[in-house]
Amino acid sequence: MKIGVVLPTSDPDLLAGRQALYAGWARPGTEISVRLLDNRVPTEADPSDSFVLPEILHQIVEAEQDTADAVIVDCMEDPGVEEGRRLVNIPVIGPGHAAMNLASVLGYKFSILYPLQQTILIERLVVHHHISMLASIRYLSCGLEGIRSSDSATLEVLEQTAITAIIEDGAHVIIPACTLTSHLVQQLQERLHEKDYPVPVVDGPSTAVKLAEALVDLDLSPSRVTYPGPLGISRRIA
Amino acid sequence: MKIGVVLPTSDPDLLAGRQALYAGWARPGTEISVRLLDNRVPTEADPSDSFVLPEILHQIVEAEQDTADAVIVDCMEDPGVEEGRRLVNIPVIGPGHAAMNLASVLGYKFSILYPLQQTILIERLVVHHHISMLASIRYLSCGLEGIRSSDSATLEVLEQTAITAIIEDGAHVIIPACTLTSHLVQQLQERLHEKDYPVPVVDGPSTAVKLAEALVDLDLSPSRVTYPGPLGISRRIA
Amino acid sequence: MKIGVVLPTSDPDLLAGRQALYAGWARPGTEISVRLLDNRVPTEADPSDSFVLPEILHQIVEAEQDTADAVIVDCMEDPGVEEGRRLVNIPVIGPGHAAMNLASVLGYKFSILYPLQQTILIERLVVHHHISMLASIRYLSCGLEGIRSSDSATLEVLEQTAITAIIEDGAHVIIPACTLTSHLVQQLQERLHEKDYPVPVVDGPSTAVKLAEALVDLDLSPSRVTYPGPLGISRRIA
Amino acid sequence: MKIGVVLPTSDPDLLAGRQALYAGWARPGTEISVRLLDNRVPTEADPSDSFVLPEILHQIVEAEQDTADAVIVDCMEDPGVEEGRRLVNIPVIGPGHAAMNLASVLGYKFSILYPLQQTILIERLVVHHHISMLASIRYLSCGLEGIRSSDSATLEVLEQTAITAIIEDGAHVIIPACTLTSHLVQQLQERLHEKDYPVPVVDGPSTAVKLAEALVDLDLSPSRVTYPGPLGISRRIA
Amino acid sequence: MKIGVVLPTSDPDLLAGRQALYAGWARPGTEISVRLLDNRVPTEADPSDSFVLPEILHQIVEAEQDTADAVIVDCMEDPGVEEGRRLVNIPVIGPGHAAMNLASVLGYKFSILYPLQQTILIERLVVHHHISMLASIRYLSCGLEGIRSSDSATLEVLEQTAITAIIEDGAHVIIPACTLTSHLVQQLQERLHEKDYPVPVVDGPSTAVKLAEALVDLDLSPSRVTYPGPLGISRRIA
Amino acid sequence: MKIGVVLPTSDPDLLAGRQALYAGWARPGTEISVRLLDNRVPTEADPSDSFVLPEILHQIVEAEQDTADAVIVDCMEDPGVEEGRRLVNIPVIGPGHAAMNLASVLGYKFSILYPLQQTILIERLVVHHHISMLASIRYLSCGLEGIRSSDSATLEVLEQTAITAIIEDGAHVIIPACTLTSHLVQQLQERLHEKDYPVPVVDGPSTAVKLAEALVDLDLSPSRVTYPGPLGISRRIA
Repeated sequence: MKIGVVLPTSDPDLLAGRQALYAGWARPGTEISVRLLDNRVPTEADPSDSFVLPEILHQIVEAEQDTADAVIVDCMEDPGVEEGRRLVNIPVIGPGHAAMNLASVLGYKFSILYPLQQTILIERLVVHHHISMLASIRYLSCGLEGIRSSDSATLEVLEQTAITAIIEDGAHVIIPACTLTSHLVQQLQERLHEKDYPVPVVDGPSTAVKLAEALVDLDLSPSRVTYPGPLGISRRIA
Repeated sequence: MKIGVVLPTSDPDLLAGRQALYAGWARPGTEISVRLLDNRVPTEADPSDSFVLPEILHQIVEAEQDTADAVIVDCMEDPGVEEGRRLVNIPVIGPGHAAMNLASVLGYKFSILYPLQQTILIERLVVHHHISMLASIRYLSCGLEGIRSSDSATLEVLEQTAITAIIEDGAHVIIPACTLTSHLVQQLQERLHEKDYPVPVVDGPSTAVKLAEALVDLDLSPSRVTYPGPLGISRRIA
Repeated sequence: MKIGVVLPTSDPDLLAGRQALYAGWARPGTEISVRLLDNRVPTEADPSDSFVLPEILHQIVEAEQDTADAVIVDCMEDPGVEEGRRLVNIPVIGPGHAAMNLASVLGYKFSILYPLQQTILIERLVVHHHISMLASIRYLSCGLEGIRSSDSATLEVLEQTAITAIIEDGAHVIIPACTLTSHLVQQLQERLHEKDYPVPVVDGPSTAVKLAEALVDLDLSPSRVTYPGPLGISRRIA
Repeated sequence: MKIGVVLPTSDPDLLAGRQALYAGWARPGTEISVRLLDNRVPTEADPSDSFVLPEILHQIVEAEQDTADAVIVDCMEDPGVEEGRRLVNIPVIGPGHAAMNLASVLGYKFSILYPLQQTILIERLVVHHHISMLASIRYLSCGLEGIRSSDSATLEVLEQTAITAIIEDGAHVIIPACTLTSHLVQQLQERLHEKDYPVPVVDGPSTAVKLAEALVDLDLSPSRVTYPGPLGISRRIA
Repeated sequence: MKIGVVLPTSDPDLLAGRQALYAGWARPGTEISVRLLDNRVPTEADPSDSFVLPEILHQIVEAEQDTADAVIVDCMEDPGVEEGRRLVNIPVIGPGHAAMNLASVLGYKFSILYPLQQTILIERLVVHHHISMLASIRYLSCGLEGIRSSDSATLEVLEQTAITAIIEDGAHVIIPACTLTSHLVQQLQERLHEKDYPVPVVDGPSTAVKLAEALVDLDLSPSRVTYPGPLGISRRIA
Repeated sequence: MKIGVVLPTSDPDLLAGRQALYAGWARPGTEISVRLLDNRVPTEADPSDSFVLPEILHQIVEAEQDTADAVIVDCMEDPGVEEGRRLVNIPVIGPGHAAMNLASVLGYKFSILYPLQQTILIERLVVHHHISMLASIRYLSCGLEGIRSSDSATLEVLEQTAITAIIEDGAHVIIPACTLTSHLVQQLQERLHEKDYPVPVVDGPSTAVKLAEALVDLDLSPSRVTYPGPLGISRRIA
């Protein structure tokens, strides 16, 4: 099968790294095809900026035309996922919702570790999907810059923040809500287990790949009742 | 004060009628300024089609630049309202949420009367805003075409559907979720009262005008914690 | 239009001040008529004391007979509002519910700042109206005495408590739940914005006036399904 | 122990019958003392009419002064129960909440059978106490007049309505919400069991007696955090 | 009436003490019959260990055969209660749910004081019964060993933890969730009242006895819709 | 990887068929090992009968000792899944919860089609996992016997019941809750799509296999905070 991955950026420097990471999560026989936004989008644009949305949707449509069997938007806030489901017939998957959904079969309450102080951007997902198992959203004090600078320092912050979430917020499962920490998640889980915090740590992007593979295997796509196609000329203003 | 109204269509034939209706609801001293979408948007496009969203947002931003004190998106599904709040500093108001919000000070449960069979398009608002007082969403069998064709037939359908919602679904308040029935709401309420169904009927667009006037009077705008401004270059992918 | 305001006290010293404040919030053409409780009610009685309730209801009925188009009970705990709606045909409005309702179109979660340590008296409103957006109720350490003594000290406490609610409780909107701080709300909002806490501050009494004006403009009254009239001799004990 | 029972009526004809019924539910050693409202209250007044409330509260206070260990308000809508808890130090019990509370240890969902078409009067209790296990409220078509006229006809209506609630609404437990059907509840349960509807039927007044006895045995009274005493002169308007 | 009490242990040393305690809570005329698990169960087994469950169910069935009118499982986590209700025709009562249920007629929110750090074992009950009034679960730092060693030290820990729950978590009612502290609950309530924390303290086992007596008096058993009997040969795998 | 499947029956006739079906869902490289209950369990025992539970748990433990990487209990009611997670260190998966969880990324509301009239047995799962997206549970009138007798007749009933759930209950996704209809799910989905009901149909057992593969790939196991190991001698009665 073929899984399209939409990077919500136009920065070509990110392409090879994400392609390699996603390919590493795919099972044998799954082809990964990572796509950038059109280069008219400034590289410094934010995935949640409203003018970026149409470009993400454009890539989702292009991925389907390029014979992808499923498509993932590579951002934990799932920009364009709900809207994109109305435009194509293949599964459109967001790593944010995918991770929260998997967490709910692993324990009763999860905490999100998030690298932006404006936690509302991820809380919106929780609000929209009526997820009742959220224990807390905690800010990763290293921020996005810190995550890009040093893996060891980031791992330290992840660990400390996870432990705080477990002790103070009663988290049973941990979700680091950043696509740039995927390669640290396994180590984070090991460190927590070693220090006797027996909680699973769920990574968004790799979980999204597994969900895509499962949906394609099972021949399932989002419901057209929940996500009706474009209404076109069938009406005007309601 | 000046209230901008964004019509989510590019059809110039609608402009004068909506301007007159909105002006009729405004109190003395309130100026109404109705805006159309760019004429590159086909007139038959649907307000909820994803490619229409950037055009709605563009008009919201333009309304603020044009010195509007508040802006209303003239569609019961509130397209662009949540996204628009991140882009401007004035209140952005959707008649759908405005009507549901007012209904909740009038009674415990409301029903929505909706002219499309795909009720999910309005249910999404209920889901997103975590509104717990919904009794039901009922389809108006005349459809949008019927609403455009005949006021008396539409009023008949509105009345019958409202009565069904009251009896079978336990509605305490009725919301016709169509911007084209505003001028029938007063008559609908009278008819229901005459037949001994003592429920209020709430209209979206006129309620949105009252909410806009109230927010401007009280100097209130949406919270920037809920609706942070564009992140610009402050980050890339999280 | 004419709006009746019931002060839940018999203290005549309060009359002129409240009349002036309410008149200041009304738009041109709105007449405000403030009413005191019967002077058999001791001036030191509390609005929530049960023997005060019939007197509040009596004034609500009198306001309607005095041709008021809507009536407001001037206390953030909304005493008599639910019961009063069963007795008259005009809108009966409580500033507590009005403020919480308006807050929910401005952001996802609000905190209440309250001058009594027995916060249950205001929490009851939240419980009764099934309001799911409450972030917290925080005690204003100056108390009611402090509020009456010094505006500048009160403003300081309001600001500190609001900031704590924003940081620790995740409040997106602030509601000071005291009718005696209305004149400080605008300053509080400015101070918070200056210190980079971009949250709106909602005042109960002025919001109640705007809600009353809107309901009268829209010809809406509470649902008689939710608030049936007195049952009279139609039954005995059920 | 001594249990006071407040009849929310001034009709002396009801006194002996209710006294006998309540005494029949009490265990040996429990004294029942039934109280009427002051005879200034017209006998045809409704327990939920607002001017009746102070008289109910007055009797609750009198019952405590008369050395009652607990007091029950004999009406399924629990008028005065919440307010009364603030005025006395003994348990104040409503048969409506008592029955719903007991139902929730017997099954997952219950239906209420109610003799008034204005079901909001009992739904209010469900709303206020945040009871999530309600399957439905169904109207007893015989009405209050029918209940007073014929036991056999009432039993027939109770049975048919209960069966409808079980089949159509998925009720696991049945609560007839009328104080005048207590003596039929046992027969109703038997009839349902015979017809292979194995659901328990919970009666309000007798359940209230058992709850009163349990609270007195366990030396428990309502929390003063939830129900603070009258505030007296401690404050004015908040 | 006769109430069976299943001790979820095989340790014969506990028998006499529990029999005496339970007999002390029963009203005159109620016979208490305490039962141990089969002595093949090691005395050090935990009530929540999965291999203990069939033995608890076995004792529930035996209690019914021994003519008990109701049966209580003497553990705050209610092991076997839901499963047991499918096997017998008499009420099966767990002190955990019984206490939480009674707490909800005494106030709006309760806190649980629990002697194990793995609070999930009691939280499961809250989760399963959809109890929305939980303020917090707080760990009793003395642990089970401390409770067995010293009443005065335990009382001190109970008091301190209760006060923390009242102040920090907003508890209106306190439930110590340990069957070994029943004899301290009355003193705990007195101490709290003396220090001006006017909250009721609810004990599980004694509340379970009162609930059992009430259900037998009222001739009520769990609903067979919620708790269908064993399916036997009526089906295989669904 | 190796996935253990516990059949909750001792009937050896079922072994080969289930092994073949499960093997068909597994991806290349996944070994399926189906296990029966001990033959002391009567073949006609029901998976939800309480005496069957210890045998299911025994097989879960044996599967782990037999080097399985994950284990599935082959029954839509997930018997033993929650308890089993406390006993082993590998993922324990129930097809019921797995299907409901996957449904929630495909649409907003799902309906369950169930072959037993006692729908509480599957509703329990919904209740326990706090799943808020249930539209309805509908009985499959063919029953289990019908499912075993004729595929074409069963398919007809599935289709009719699904259509009723879509139209009357507003289902967006369909879950047939029977392990014996897995081979019909694909056809059911096609039939519904052909008749213009564009909803996905989710099968439990095949979804459970995909979830097992995903969890093993991602190195995730249930949280030990939610599912602590056996407490052994660490405590007695709490």
